[in-house]
Amino acid sequence: MEQKSNTAILLIHCPDQEGILAAVTSFINVNKGNILYLDQHVDYQQNTFFTRIEWDLTNFLIPRDKLNEYFSTLFGSRYDMQFNLYFSDIKPRMAIFVSKMSHCLFDILARYSAGELNVDIPLIISNHPDLAWVGEKFGIPYHVFHVTKENKEEIEKAEMDLLAENKIDFIVLARYMQIISENMINSYPNKIINIHHSFLPAFVGAKPYHQAFERGVKIIGATSHYVTTELDAGPIIEQDVARVTHKDSVKSFIHKGEDLEKIVLSRAVEKHIDRKVLVYKNKTVVFS
Amino acid sequence: MEQKSNTAILLIHCPDQEGILAAVTSFINVNKGNILYLDQHVDYQQNTFFTRIEWDLTNFLIPRDKLNEYFSTLFGSRYDMQFNLYFSDIKPRMAIFVSKMSHCLFDILARYSAGELNVDIPLIISNHPDLAWVGEKFGIPYHVFHVTKENKEEIEKAEMDLLAENKIDFIVLARYMQIISENMINSYPNKIINIHHSFLPAFVGAKPYHQAFERGVKIIGATSHYVTTELDAGPIIEQDVARVTHKDSVKSFIHKGEDLEKIVLSRAVEKHIDRKVLVYKNKTVVFS
Amino acid sequence: MEQKSNTAILLIHCPDQEGILAAVTSFINVNKGNILYLDQHVDYQQNTFFTRIEWDLTNFLIPRDKLNEYFSTLFGSRYDMQFNLYFSDIKPRMAIFVSKMSHCLFDILARYSAGELNVDIPLIISNHPDLAWVGEKFGIPYHVFHVTKENKEEIEKAEMDLLAENKIDFIVLARYMQIISENMINSYPNKIINIHHSFLPAFVGAKPYHQAFERGVKIIGATSHYVTTELDAGPIIEQDVARVTHKDSVKSFIHKGEDLEKIVLSRAVEKHIDRKVLVYKNKTVVFS
Amino acid sequence: MEQKSNTAILLIHCPDQEGILAAVTSFINVNKGNILYLDQHVDYQQNTFFTRIEWDLTNFLIPRDKLNEYFSTLFGSRYDMQFNLYFSDIKPRMAIFVSKMSHCLFDILARYSAGELNVDIPLIISNHPDLAWVGEKFGIPYHVFHVTKENKEEIEKAEMDLLAENKIDFIVLARYMQIISENMINSYPNKIINIHHSFLPAFVGAKPYHQAFERGVKIIGATSHYVTTELDAGPIIEQDVARVTHKDSVKSFIHKGEDLEKIVLSRAVEKHIDRKVLVYKNKTVVFS
Repeated sequence: MEQKSNTAILLIHCPDQEGILAAVTSFINVNKGNILYLDQHVDYQQNTFFTRIEWDLTNFLIPRDKLNEYFSTLFGSRYDMQFNLYFSDIKPRMAIFVSKMSHCLFDILARYSAGELNVDIPLIISNHPDLAWVGEKFGIPYHVFHVTKENKEEIEKAEMDLLAENKIDFIVLARYMQIISENMINSYPNKIINIHHSFLPAFVGAKPYHQAFERGVKIIGATSHYVTTELDAGPIIEQDVARVTHKDSVKSFIHKGEDLEKIVLSRAVEKHIDRKVLVYKNKTVVFS
Repeated sequence: MEQKSNTAILLIHCPDQEGILAAVTSFINVNKGNILYLDQHVDYQQNTFFTRIEWDLTNFLIPRDKLNEYFSTLFGSRYDMQFNLYFSDIKPRMAIFVSKMSHCLFDILARYSAGELNVDIPLIISNHPDLAWVGEKFGIPYHVFHVTKENKEEIEKAEMDLLAENKIDFIVLARYMQIISENMINSYPNKIINIHHSFLPAFVGAKPYHQAFERGVKIIGATSHYVTTELDAGPIIEQDVARVTHKDSVKSFIHKGEDLEKIVLSRAVEKHIDRKVLVYKNKTVVFS
Repeated sequence: MEQKSNTAILLIHCPDQEGILAAVTSFINVNKGNILYLDQHVDYQQNTFFTRIEWDLTNFLIPRDKLNEYFSTLFGSRYDMQFNLYFSDIKPRMAIFVSKMSHCLFDILARYSAGELNVDIPLIISNHPDLAWVGEKFGIPYHVFHVTKENKEEIEKAEMDLLAENKIDFIVLARYMQIISENMINSYPNKIINIHHSFLPAFVGAKPYHQAFERGVKIIGATSHYVTTELDAGPIIEQDVARVTHKDSVKSFIHKGEDLEKIVLSRAVEKHIDRKVLVYKNKTVVFS
Repeated sequence: MEQKSNTAILLIHCPDQEGILAAVTSFINVNKGNILYLDQHVDYQQNTFFTRIEWDLTNFLIPRDKLNEYFSTLFGSRYDMQFNLYFSDIKPRMAIFVSKMSHCLFDILARYSAGELNVDIPLIISNHPDLAWVGEKFGIPYHVFHVTKENKEEIEKAEMDLLAENKIDFIVLARYMQIISENMINSYPNKIINIHHSFLPAFVGAKPYHQAFERGVKIIGATSHYVTTELDAGPIIEQDVARVTHKDSVKSFIHKGEDLEKIVLSRAVEKHIDRKVLVYKNKTVVFS
């Protein structure tokens, strides 16, 4: 949210060893970058170093288009680093997939139109025409693809072409009730964010509120995660819960759940947009 | 907690029909019972009526030893009721089963010795001698039964004899790391309270914190439930959760979890002791 | 949310005495009303009876326009009752007041346009033109009243005329940054719902997030309440909280708080619309 | 909790500048200290650097008794640092003050006797004899000081002598219902931990649950904080909350609150014992 207009962001993980942080911060300081944010975490069990650094580029001496190369040469191989470099003034481009329920879509678009999300949303894709009016309200092209068993492969190809034409960086499934194919998932690794309407790994799959009601739980939840080829098993970004009682029906589970879903999804989307999520071994490190 | 010294408590469920509550409250009023608590819930989907009523017996006209019979005759069959009658001055007798971890045991005994639980605890049973000192501190006999695969049946028989001798009404598994046999479960239907160290139905079975850590969840939980013959699948009484982050280790999951476990178990035990839990179709109605 | 198309709703409180509930339910049953919801609570300390009853009017024998009178005659004075009668197919009419922040406004309008709120929203009133575009998006007339110290009385008169013309039943202050005059408050007793961006009664008045940050709290909150003439001191309808840490700034307090505010306000508004809030001695009874 | 047997712990804050962390970690590494934990936070608004570092001393080249001096010379004045050095095998010595309620006392002693707290507890002080039996159960001397208005000064002197004799490092007020004098507070700056039974700053002072009930809140809380001379206004270490409804009475507020109080106080005490709390400008930085 608090993006500065001209900053660089580095997400790094590598085997821990002495002096990594010193080397990296020194490099930034020496080249006249002003560090605005630095969070690091060392997992001493796995001997792994994680960090997120953001610095002001106003007086930075290294040209933006050289930075990735320099950093790779100076630190990447030396420390066996996996790193991602982003610039805050290059907005990621996001596609939203929806079906018939509007609560998550509205929550994202409300933040978007209030200027809270540092992102571009060139399009919405749906398997139903029901929410076309929402796209219209917000002036975002709404594309309907009628998916059937027969045409699924062909339709996904068309969708992926559309995504490519629009230079989409990542996809948000805002209660999209269709299984995404392996092909699409593999084209957007850790770049498809889903909201599952349960406290995963409880109640994987269809109708989780019905399952939860049947089981007689006292708390319901929602989980946002990156989509992997195994159903509802990708890296969890955010979760939240709400109390229910014997007075609740499946309907009120669903109603209470909607508030969870939209907040949990929007939080995950924000963290992703702000480049605060680092995926490591099917888990996430979510920086504050 | 707020037990009056001389009250009767009725837990009722039956098919809903007109006038049940009127009939029951009228019966109590006419016979000079002063109602202190009444909570009712109608599940209109299942057309089922649930209530818990507590009234002062000081001036009540029907003798205590006749009350069950009268109520059964007047209402039981007429409304196809399932009901349980309790008297607040007859304390239930509770056995605690523990293994090696003391947090749940201590939490219950602290409440007990502060006079917060309207219960008698004549004994503690364990498969390990480690916590014998706790029993000693609180002056409660601590019985060790070394269970092995070979002697399991025989040992459980001895345990059940001990429970019978001590007129135990219900059992609390305060982190007891042994599977209870079907025989014992069937002897104490909805009368064995377990604490499972996960947010059920996620992470059934052994080492739930390790499972949760592996899965990368952002929230951990604890669940207290009545024990049924299906593992970790009985009626849930209470659940609670706590946030974790990528900075947490399995050790800190376990540590944070211990606070959840003891509070969740103690709340469930209190609700059971106060006769505020009604089991219906593998779910619980928990009155406030 | 789960409004039936043709039901009557009664909210009642009165001194507790024997047989009230029996009398009322009997009256409904005898006249062929089918009870769909009944929740009652007796405060035995204050000897006060509270209930909310909803029943299907399809076969109800008493004409709708006579019901209030009948009920008053039969029960009102006899039991010294305060009661309110509503019909679910008569939607309340709600005005939204906003200033410059859109999150609460959007959250309400998203629910409204998804058909989740059984309400009519004929107008939005603001002291700033900034959010006129939101009103436009949702097709709701947006009226700007530039309030100054000098013209406050006159402007409020104009606002109240507009509210009266539009037959407004209740008002929602969706982050409206103006003190409402006593005159307007007294015209809408327990009918103006405010969201205060703190965990009341902590941080009354201006800039509560700054106050909270200054105090170093570990949890922030939001509170929705009915407006009374004493600032931020009216009956609380709903509250919720979120954790913060030393890593949070005032900005991130505000950002996290916005999610609380909108959910807490929307929940309160829903409860009010569904006639589930009963005010009693500057407190609320909120039915489930 | 996860204390290693022989580690050094540094808590540091100072004006932020380039290279602090590099200098400090380098110093530890060069001298063969193995860093086990490092958490840092920079407040870029206030330009202040905070860190907590813990390292294994097994092969550390600088003798323990010289370490403070070396560190002060090498870094302290150079970076204008405020730092505290601790050794994990030197247990802090803690006194518990109680009045009549046992829940917090029990919770601390249960953790203590389970070996979870790296602390020595040589004594309990009380203004009432009621809980002497608890001290006895756990084998901890329990000293009763009958405080009256007249003898307050004299009694506190006796208490402080006793604390000094027992080399007490810090004090835990486990629901101690007496105002501590300025003199004692000034002798233990940021070393007296209190639990206040409200969500501070709401409901400062006496009978907060009664105040909360009167106000009609929907959530209650508990707050642990360091004691300063201004009542209930010291740096907050930890807070937590629980939901209440219109069905709750003052009694049930108190009952629900007790679980909050003990968990919140114990968490704060653990953080303090583990040297994870850093006080800065009447706020705390609590490391994970």
